[in-house]
Amino acid sequence: MLVVMRAEATPADLDRVVAAIDAMGAEAHRVPGPGRRLALAVTGDMQPAEGAHIVALPAVDEVFWGGATYHLASREWHPEPTRIRLGGGVVIGGEAVVLIAGPCAVETERQLMETAQAAATAGAQLLRGGAYKPRSSPYSFQGLGREGLELLARARRDTGLLIVTEALDTDTVGAVAEIADVIQVGSRNMANFSLLKRVGRTGKPVLLKRGMAATVQELLLAAEYILAEGNPDVILCERGIRGFDGSTRNVFDLAAIPLLHELSHLPVIADPSHGTGRRDLVPAMARAAIAAGADGLMLEVHPEPDLARSDGAQSLPLDALPALVHELRGVAAAVGRQFAAKSGAIPA
Amino acid sequence: MLVVMRAEATPADLDRVVAAIDAMGAEAHRVPGPGRRLALAVTGDMQPAEGAHIVALPAVDEVFWGGATYHLASREWHPEPTRIRLGGGVVIGGEAVVLIAGPCAVETERQLMETAQAAATAGAQLLRGGAYKPRSSPYSFQGLGREGLELLARARRDTGLLIVTEALDTDTVGAVAEIADVIQVGSRNMANFSLLKRVGRTGKPVLLKRGMAATVQELLLAAEYILAEGNPDVILCERGIRGFDGSTRNVFDLAAIPLLHELSHLPVIADPSHGTGRRDLVPAMARAAIAAGADGLMLEVHPEPDLARSDGAQSLPLDALPALVHELRGVAAAVGRQFAAKSGAIPA
Amino acid sequence: MLVVMRAEATPADLDRVVAAIDAMGAEAHRVPGPGRRLALAVTGDMQPAEGAHIVALPAVDEVFWGGATYHLASREWHPEPTRIRLGGGVVIGGEAVVLIAGPCAVETERQLMETAQAAATAGAQLLRGGAYKPRSSPYSFQGLGREGLELLARARRDTGLLIVTEALDTDTVGAVAEIADVIQVGSRNMANFSLLKRVGRTGKPVLLKRGMAATVQELLLAAEYILAEGNPDVILCERGIRGFDGSTRNVFDLAAIPLLHELSHLPVIADPSHGTGRRDLVPAMARAAIAAGADGLMLEVHPEPDLARSDGAQSLPLDALPALVHELRGVAAAVGRQFAAKSGAIPA
Amino acid sequence: MLVVMRAEATPADLDRVVAAIDAMGAEAHRVPGPGRRLALAVTGDMQPAEGAHIVALPAVDEVFWGGATYHLASREWHPEPTRIRLGGGVVIGGEAVVLIAGPCAVETERQLMETAQAAATAGAQLLRGGAYKPRSSPYSFQGLGREGLELLARARRDTGLLIVTEALDTDTVGAVAEIADVIQVGSRNMANFSLLKRVGRTGKPVLLKRGMAATVQELLLAAEYILAEGNPDVILCERGIRGFDGSTRNVFDLAAIPLLHELSHLPVIADPSHGTGRRDLVPAMARAAIAAGADGLMLEVHPEPDLARSDGAQSLPLDALPALVHELRGVAAAVGRQFAAKSGAIPA
Repeated sequence: MLVVMRAEATPADLDRVVAAIDAMGAEAHRVPGPGRRLALAVTGDMQPAEGAHIVALPAVDEVFWGGATYHLASREWHPEPTRIRLGGGVVIGGEAVVLIAGPCAVETERQLMETAQAAATAGAQLLRGGAYKPRSSPYSFQGLGREGLELLARARRDTGLLIVTEALDTDTVGAVAEIADVIQVGSRNMANFSLLKRVGRTGKPVLLKRGMAATVQELLLAAEYILAEGNPDVILCERGIRGFDGSTRNVFDLAAIPLLHELSHLPVIADPSHGTGRRDLVPAMARAAIAAGADGLMLEVHPEPDLARSDGAQSLPLDALPALVHELRGVAAAVGRQFAAKSGAIPA
Repeated sequence: MLVVMRAEATPADLDRVVAAIDAMGAEAHRVPGPGRRLALAVTGDMQPAEGAHIVALPAVDEVFWGGATYHLASREWHPEPTRIRLGGGVVIGGEAVVLIAGPCAVETERQLMETAQAAATAGAQLLRGGAYKPRSSPYSFQGLGREGLELLARARRDTGLLIVTEALDTDTVGAVAEIADVIQVGSRNMANFSLLKRVGRTGKPVLLKRGMAATVQELLLAAEYILAEGNPDVILCERGIRGFDGSTRNVFDLAAIPLLHELSHLPVIADPSHGTGRRDLVPAMARAAIAAGADGLMLEVHPEPDLARSDGAQSLPLDALPALVHELRGVAAAVGRQFAAKSGAIPA
Repeated sequence: MLVVMRAEATPADLDRVVAAIDAMGAEAHRVPGPGRRLALAVTGDMQPAEGAHIVALPAVDEVFWGGATYHLASREWHPEPTRIRLGGGVVIGGEAVVLIAGPCAVETERQLMETAQAAATAGAQLLRGGAYKPRSSPYSFQGLGREGLELLARARRDTGLLIVTEALDTDTVGAVAEIADVIQVGSRNMANFSLLKRVGRTGKPVLLKRGMAATVQELLLAAEYILAEGNPDVILCERGIRGFDGSTRNVFDLAAIPLLHELSHLPVIADPSHGTGRRDLVPAMARAAIAAGADGLMLEVHPEPDLARSDGAQSLPLDALPALVHELRGVAAAVGRQFAAKSGAIPA
Repeated sequence: MLVVMRAEATPADLDRVVAAIDAMGAEAHRVPGPGRRLALAVTGDMQPAEGAHIVALPAVDEVFWGGATYHLASREWHPEPTRIRLGGGVVIGGEAVVLIAGPCAVETERQLMETAQAAATAGAQLLRGGAYKPRSSPYSFQGLGREGLELLARARRDTGLLIVTEALDTDTVGAVAEIADVIQVGSRNMANFSLLKRVGRTGKPVLLKRGMAATVQELLLAAEYILAEGNPDVILCERGIRGFDGSTRNVFDLAAIPLLHELSHLPVIADPSHGTGRRDLVPAMARAAIAAGADGLMLEVHPEPDLARSDGAQSLPLDALPALVHELRGVAAAVGRQFAAKSGAIPA
């Protein structure tokens, strides 16, 4: 349920509504809306009759219900696009298309520092790299854990790149949130609602990847879990869905980008590395994603892709980055945007 | 990695191997194998060269590698079917096909007790019911939580039915494990590897549902995460995969049942309620699942399906159960099995 | 459009309606309905206003429109199941579940005769075998053509089995219709509407296989093309749909069987050979299909499956048939039906 | 089978090989290769031993087998991209990206002429429009047939646009080939091999749409059927595959474009109208397709989309075309290509 307050609501009005919701055993989360308006996202168990009581309180404008509806993520109530301001002047969702590059997994200091340096030189604003890795097999490399986080922090100090890294579970969210500038929730966890609530409460921006079999509506409802915790900074990510043709790892569903932009005010980035699973197709799909309106690209790069401990087949070698960035700048310009300026130098 | 010890290995031999694995920074989990043999499932990061060192130790028979290989779940090393012995003489994976019935979510005491009574009378051995519910929307009913668990415990006392209920996250696994006879891991969490490890460590039997877009191999690798924690009691569950035809909620992939039986020694049950999403198709698909070799059925039933707070469209009314059970007994007999005897009266 | 005449309509009434439809440039196909009622399926281009003119004519009861609606295939207008009476007393859609067995392709006289003999002995009523084969590659064996048809005719003479064989295109429908007792339209041709119309006009019963990516509604609309030509004898066939898990060739969508029975009066058979693509899974899926309510089974069998020129991996060896038939008889009995009696000996 | 002749092969050498193939009961189709080399695509039934005999003949360079291999469509034997030269200087597969626009179906003279005029003015080189329409329901509008073809011919005379129109079946291929500059084979007919052979024999360029559930390999094998008839002018078309999310009509698989270019020398165009099924998503996906490397775009446009007799939801209004073309020119330029110059003014 979403309770929208009138623009002229006073703090006392708000407290009265929160108290009424508490008294019903539900929980109210304050959510800043457009202008000076405020909404309360209500989670927990509330009956329609109780909602009718709330709408009658002073300074309450509207009450929305709806099991399968994403109020906070929707453009309806929030027509302006959300611009997520990270440190160093980097903005996601603004005019500039951001570049996030890095290895699938943090493996060694040398691997990470070389990659970070190359990414920064090529114009990336963010470095990606998993310290905690979700792997299909318990016998596969599961990431360096806390040591990986420390290497990421060092890479940030050395290069100025901001850090995106994945939180795998509620136990490690805290450690990840301490280091990360943006917390990633991976495809396999898109419907791990406990994790979504927890990352929502960290206050850090969240990069939410679409699940392998998730509809666009389900992705927006997953975002709603984060938003309902009062965290407005959610970046959606199209990364391919499962398909029947084994010649690519996934089906990269680029139409989801304009569709998400139409339904939601949240920024949308694209991951052509997972979207295709093939290094040879990444450049064309990176170009296509920008042309489709992506607000950013997430690319896997590695100093020695064929020796990577995970996802080598889809990682670009470092020396492929500059030429690709050059190409992508042209496509961005053709659709009225900038791409991959130096870190810290991106205007919103 | 899996280290298989020789049958004649002594405790000292075993300790030596465990110590060597520890010294390499990896973790050894003891796994009882067939006969008196024992294996060590090694998780964590280990190099091939280190594996070569292990295989040279006394009383080590073989060392298996393999990112995408499920050793413990495989029939190769464990040809006999696993029979999971629950309380009250109930066995899953034996000659008898078990019946698990109950509501999608525990809603009220009356709803649960009526359902439990009807399930027990119809011949079910286990009662299902969610206390913690994973819902696509944060505004949908999320379950009664701990109160729901207590109602389930009461239903067990009143009816003798064993309890299957879902653990949604690592925070609530403990509470669920205290009450549940079998802990369910839902479809959305099949690749929540932290949760899999945690339920593996509870020592309770685990009912693992196939993910909506998971291959059979991925389901077995998910089971491997639980088995690698030393928990041998994993029940696999086919519950439908995502498809293109909206006329059913999912595509019920019954061929996965004989395929899983061929690849693995673990018992396999079927959930035609989620598999179809339509009450009218459940009876035919329940019959088909037994004919395909399922070791159990999981059925959603509700006193008033049209008023259910979740999944009403796929829930059978209580009074449909006796006739369906009668029908299913006939099919079970035709494939040489029993079905839905009274609780406690099931021979292995 | 479907024009339903009143039960008391006279031939003159009917002629008047047909003439009106002709005058509008559309085409009326006479379709016998339940009781003595008759309907006219109207194909070609007609406007709603013209339909309004028709409904005002004497003895016209109702006019149905609907782009995406299958009137003739629907149970609504035809609640009783259709029983298709073939030669020799064989009925599809009656109490008995029929067995259709044979090789994927007719390859040699010896291969076909051995197979036919084994199928007849095992209790099959129909022999399948492709003379014209649709193959993904132009370089693969495309079938023996007319010579294959002649071998099928000989097999019928020798064994009494009726013949099901595929018509690939409008050019060969005539030749196929001369020999076949049932004309098969394959998956790849389910939406080849010209072929559907042409087989509809042969007057021979048609076995229509579901397309690899066809919804249940699309399958029924494809059947409607045949029915609208005045051919009431359509047998629907579930044979697997495309999925993401390469461990089986297709996803065998057994829930389509009860769903089709609910929506339509047409008989539904199942093809577990294509449905799974794996010989090892065929027996379990054949059992499941009967338990799900299939009116018949279509099985690929071959004297030497590993030498088959197509689909060897999914063909059963001849000596596997008797034991499987025995098993299937048990399942059929459990759901109140008979299975695979001798040819000619099947009561409706 | 593909028999590749040496560059120095004489006509007599070739005749000898053709005669040997004939003698084996198979059929040889002459296929011009790169340089002055020639190959013979052999269809029909031939044994490996017979192939061994062929390779021993004078001037035979190599013999390739392979059920699932597309020799003629492959880049391996034909590394240079195929440029298909149509009338009026229009080339598909050259530097310029072509624009094909028009209604789904030819409905009326006025509708077609208005559309053609608008398309020509906007810079299209080809006009699309179905005279024969494949429709899921027999009761839906099936196209104007021959009258539609005549209207298309008139539109060509009036505007200079070349014509792409669909051949639905072998019966109407002849009539379509008389009028069309490019014959379209639709998605539903991608595996209608008889139709593929027949359009192959018309000698007209063929636009081959990917089937709804076809893999990239299957699309190339379908092209191989046409090429093996000696017709080198095949244009591949990505138009969306079936997926699980009903929010778009299909999943537009843009990664197939660079993948097809990698595997094959044939030009590849994209159809974002069918690829998305939604007018609002067409512009973004048209941009993305060009960025992904498409050699052409096929767009549905209509004077009054909401009154269209088929596919209105995905048709753009005529007045949307100029702005979209302007945008697409920019994207084409960014990837080093031209887009939608006036008909007849496109250099190769």
